[in-house]
Amino acid sequence: MSGSPKTIRAVVEYDGTDFCGLQYQPPPLRSIAAELESVLAKLFHERIKITAAGRTDAGVHATGQVISFRCERDFPLERLTLALNANLPPDISVRESHVAADDFSARFSAFERRYVYHTYHAPMRSALAHRFAHHFYGSLDLEKMRTAAAALVGEHDFRSFCGELPERGPTVRTVQAIDIEERREFIVVNLRADGFLRHMARTIVGTLLEVGNARRQAGGMHDILAARSREAAGPTAPAHGLYLAGVRYADLDSFKEPLLLA
Amino acid sequence: MSGSPKTIRAVVEYDGTDFCGLQYQPPPLRSIAAELESVLAKLFHERIKITAAGRTDAGVHATGQVISFRCERDFPLERLTLALNANLPPDISVRESHVAADDFSARFSAFERRYVYHTYHAPMRSALAHRFAHHFYGSLDLEKMRTAAAALVGEHDFRSFCGELPERGPTVRTVQAIDIEERREFIVVNLRADGFLRHMARTIVGTLLEVGNARRQAGGMHDILAARSREAAGPTAPAHGLYLAGVRYADLDSFKEPLLLA
Repeated sequence: MSGSPKTIRAVVEYDGTDFCGLQYQPPPLRSIAAELESVLAKLFHERIKITAAGRTDAGVHATGQVISFRCERDFPLERLTLALNANLPPDISVRESHVAADDFSARFSAFERRYVYHTYHAPMRSALAHRFAHHFYGSLDLEKMRTAAAALVGEHDFRSFCGELPERGPTVRTVQAIDIEERREFIVVNLRADGFLRHMARTIVGTLLEVGNARRQAGGMHDILAARSREAAGPTAPAHGLYLAGVRYADLDSFKEPLLLA
Repeated sequence: MSGSPKTIRAVVEYDGTDFCGLQYQPPPLRSIAAELESVLAKLFHERIKITAAGRTDAGVHATGQVISFRCERDFPLERLTLALNANLPPDISVRESHVAADDFSARFSAFERRYVYHTYHAPMRSALAHRFAHHFYGSLDLEKMRTAAAALVGEHDFRSFCGELPERGPTVRTVQAIDIEERREFIVVNLRADGFLRHMARTIVGTLLEVGNARRQAGGMHDILAARSREAAGPTAPAHGLYLAGVRYADLDSFKEPLLLA
């Protein structure tokens, strides 16, 4: 059954632990893209290529990833979310799916991405948090972390926080906010920006943890930015604490707060 | 190095997903007991047998499981928790460990066990909750569930809620409380009793979900208890929503909420 070509948008959640990341890699590696594309091909009886708002790395989770794709054939769209969830593996789920404007792109139409980073801050590690939060047992001064975070807000060249330079284009990004809160044994860092360079969210968090742990001055952020060198910043915090929590478009904000399990 | 024999008590947390349960089963099955005993043998250089407060089934989690064991040899006990966590796999962790009274038994000295059951109540399943909560998408009337739960509180013969009868001893248990609360998309059932029969917590939850979903009358609990037959009760709710959250002793309450913070 063929119909008129459409652009579909879907909000996707995943437990990134057992994936090689969003982008396709040859089997036996499991990628989010390949799992979604294989189910879409089955449902639509055509080859479908997805575009995602954020190219999350191996181990990174998502509660509000957004994908888009073009399809030529019809599928009863009111049942698409259910059909996707019935066919996807348990560690990927679709929250909603809709027809979008013809020229919609999950990647290029987005104007804000929001990442959340979970640190389990306790002397002993937690078996229940091990897939979903980075364990940190040193002392942390949250006020110093907030001071350092504030210096990163705004439009800056984030090259020093970039693990792998983009093939083309600038390394300037605009960070709208970095909020840090404490919830029971967890330190939750919320990051909002127009876009993130590779490893940028994790390198910001790794650097802020060094500030909190008094291994780095809260006032040193300007120097790190000015250095325009990855060496200047702190370590890349582990992938398993990070969630792509939401993406903002003119007509949608996919944000969903990740749960804390402890 | 040998010393005077001691009884040690430890509070243990685990993600039960990849275990065959607490009790030993031959490899390649992984049991909580075998993992703990193998690390204890390594640290104490002797064969150690643990006793646990609750024999959790395959897939059941714990935030407040308590174990006890006897050891002949010395080990610097102030470092025991750290040493256990350094040697155990990531899905088991030890919250604390101490020397206990000589006659202490994690199983026989306990006078109350507390289980928590998480149901993810939403139309679509959640990839991030899939290891830690049972997905239920039908409608649920919490008031009816609370009425039914209240009828189970007190001393009763819980044979109808028992998946496998104990080898010996009565099937009478005293339930202190069954509390049901809603947190974001989750229904959290808290159960407290002097002890639980095999599958009792999960069969109570499975029956309460049928009541909530109008497939069973809230007033029918007395008849189920009186039947003294497993056929009379509802289904056993899936293992992955259940947590052994705490055990109470004269001098310790190991309760830790498996919190889902929204």
